[in-house]
Amino acid sequence: MSAHRVAVIAGDGVGPEVVAQARRAVEATGVEIAWTELPWGSDHYHRTGRMMPADALATLRGHDAILLGAVGDPSVPDHISLWELLLALRQGLDLWANVRPAQLLPGVPGPLAGRAPGEVDMLFVRENTEGEYAGVGGRVHAGLAGETGIEVSVFTRPAVERVVRFAFERAEERRGRLTSATKSNASRYGYVLWDEVVAEVAADHPGVEVDSVLVDALAARMVRDPGSLDVVVASNLFGDVLTDLAAALQGGMGVAASASLAPGSDAPPLFEPVHGSAPDIAGRGVANPIGCLWSAQLMLEQLGEPEAAAALRAAIAAVCRQGPRTRDLGGTASTAEVGDAVVRAVEA
Amino acid sequence: MSAHRVAVIAGDGVGPEVVAQARRAVEATGVEIAWTELPWGSDHYHRTGRMMPADALATLRGHDAILLGAVGDPSVPDHISLWELLLALRQGLDLWANVRPAQLLPGVPGPLAGRAPGEVDMLFVRENTEGEYAGVGGRVHAGLAGETGIEVSVFTRPAVERVVRFAFERAEERRGRLTSATKSNASRYGYVLWDEVVAEVAADHPGVEVDSVLVDALAARMVRDPGSLDVVVASNLFGDVLTDLAAALQGGMGVAASASLAPGSDAPPLFEPVHGSAPDIAGRGVANPIGCLWSAQLMLEQLGEPEAAAALRAAIAAVCRQGPRTRDLGGTASTAEVGDAVVRAVEA
Ligand SMILES: CC(C)[C@H](C(=O)O)[C@@H](O)C(=O)O
Ligand SMILES: CC(C)[C@H](C(=O)O)[C@@H](O)C(=O)O
Repeated sequence: MSAHRVAVIAGDGVGPEVVAQARRAVEATGVEIAWTELPWGSDHYHRTGRMMPADALATLRGHDAILLGAVGDPSVPDHISLWELLLALRQGLDLWANVRPAQLLPGVPGPLAGRAPGEVDMLFVRENTEGEYAGVGGRVHAGLAGETGIEVSVFTRPAVERVVRFAFERAEERRGRLTSATKSNASRYGYVLWDEVVAEVAADHPGVEVDSVLVDALAARMVRDPGSLDVVVASNLFGDVLTDLAAALQGGMGVAASASLAPGSDAPPLFEPVHGSAPDIAGRGVANPIGCLWSAQLMLEQLGEPEAAAALRAAIAAVCRQGPRTRDLGGTASTAEVGDAVVRAVEA
Repeated sequence: MSAHRVAVIAGDGVGPEVVAQARRAVEATGVEIAWTELPWGSDHYHRTGRMMPADALATLRGHDAILLGAVGDPSVPDHISLWELLLALRQGLDLWANVRPAQLLPGVPGPLAGRAPGEVDMLFVRENTEGEYAGVGGRVHAGLAGETGIEVSVFTRPAVERVVRFAFERAEERRGRLTSATKSNASRYGYVLWDEVVAEVAADHPGVEVDSVLVDALAARMVRDPGSLDVVVASNLFGDVLTDLAAALQGGMGVAASASLAPGSDAPPLFEPVHGSAPDIAGRGVANPIGCLWSAQLMLEQLGEPEAAAALRAAIAAVCRQGPRTRDLGGTASTAEVGDAVVRAVEA
């Protein structure tokens, strides 16, 4: 088998630091990868006026996967760095299924009292291309007393249906429970369509126990009874909020991983840690690489390398359990020391 | 001073059970109240086809305050019970400031490890009349493959400004910190207007330390570092989600209280527990009345009865600390037993 072609967008802030460790760990598994380094992000913006070149999507389409570190720098307005890179990739490549696992890991101290690893194992499936992130809206009477800002959320049946169906399939492979986040009591258009599609797709999956939960109550339930959740399917915004909450409940942003997939298409899937560029600690070698390592682990699964994926999963779990750990997990190790330990565990 | 005129909408499910205890406790303070019982809610809907009569707002305007139990019954579609009663009151009376305190109380076990009462004391100020709850939107190609649902959020400068200003004033009376929930990186219209108004109003309140935090990161921060939050100001939807999360972090829905105010207007403020009608336990006398008792306590403050408010606050705190407690807090007491204990503590 020829080498997998992986595009690397190390990006801004701590991105390059955590990506470097993920690459070493992937290489330690022995899987052959041809890496393409793409120097896109805020520096590129300052040099060229664009976060990435005009032919970026075409360049990426020639790859089997994308590994992304982080995007965002104080010197570039957020809406530019995100809409011209991260959201441009998710939407431009139509990577509609954003998958974010959240579980308590041995050795990663969580904030919830009395919850042990094994008790909490959730998989979030977030719609990744439309909804509240449609980018539609505007402002009228700008700067005047009557100024009004409008945000338009757009829910289309095909886009809702594909992500809901995907979530049901994940539930079938797991514990057979699907929870849908909604707010159709207050918002009677898009979220009602969402609920209807969930009910329709449920009819094709009689083995899955479904419940539809208001997003506010669901946030509360994640704190009160996280063990009752298996797969959660949510709109783009609800998925955004609930997965940050899930990352906090699992012991912090530093360990959370994500995959953005386009099942059935040949667009390259995108793997990235849930944490951002963390400019406050960038360049100091103290960022936690676990979120990026775990994202690379999801990439190996997706590339069809189950043995390598299993080896990397075991290595990450072992390092979480035994240390070394970075500061955010109560340790004193550097990014590279954690990376070294994972590489050694993979090689062992 | 003549009696305060309080309209009581006990409503559905556990509403009447918790309101009964709140009324007894208010009466025990010795404050004179003329109660008007309004039998509105789902039964009213079944009898008349409406959740409340056509002249409901005029009836309510003749009062000094409204005490509401809960609205919602499985026999009435949620969007009807809410849009024709709860949201009709909030929006129809222009009760624009929804205030929800959340703090760890001695005796109420919270889900966060190692956090003690005193460490967490947050006040949420939620915009209560527009934003994501504007009620604007629609569906096209209904039932067809190309079906699309649209939800429109509307942010107007006057409505954002009044609630942001109110939140700054609360921060000035408290610990001088204001956190604004936003999502202006992904949603570049309404939330950008929101951010601009926060920055403008901040200039008038130099003594308040302000930060603007993305709603996803804020949900995570409420779990990781709730002690860092003082006043939080949020849009209607973000306030909805964050306050349910806050209620869960404080030890559950059963204790959370809310006030919907229209400062500077003569519209009657509305006081209601954050919990819903809980049809599963309705009629069994086991609902926790603390959320409604605490809402009544906020009502006494608002009615200009500081001694009575202080007495009721002390009574609720004493009962939380010593019991009796309802099942949701790990006790075995009935709704009435908790109410009895609060009444005795007020009288003592
Ligand atoms: C950076 C931001 C645009 C992004 C989002 O809102 O989707 C991030 O929070 C995430 O969850 O990946
Ligand atoms: C019942 C529902 C419409 C309401 C809301 O979404 O505002 C409730 O969740 C609340 O927070 O008061």
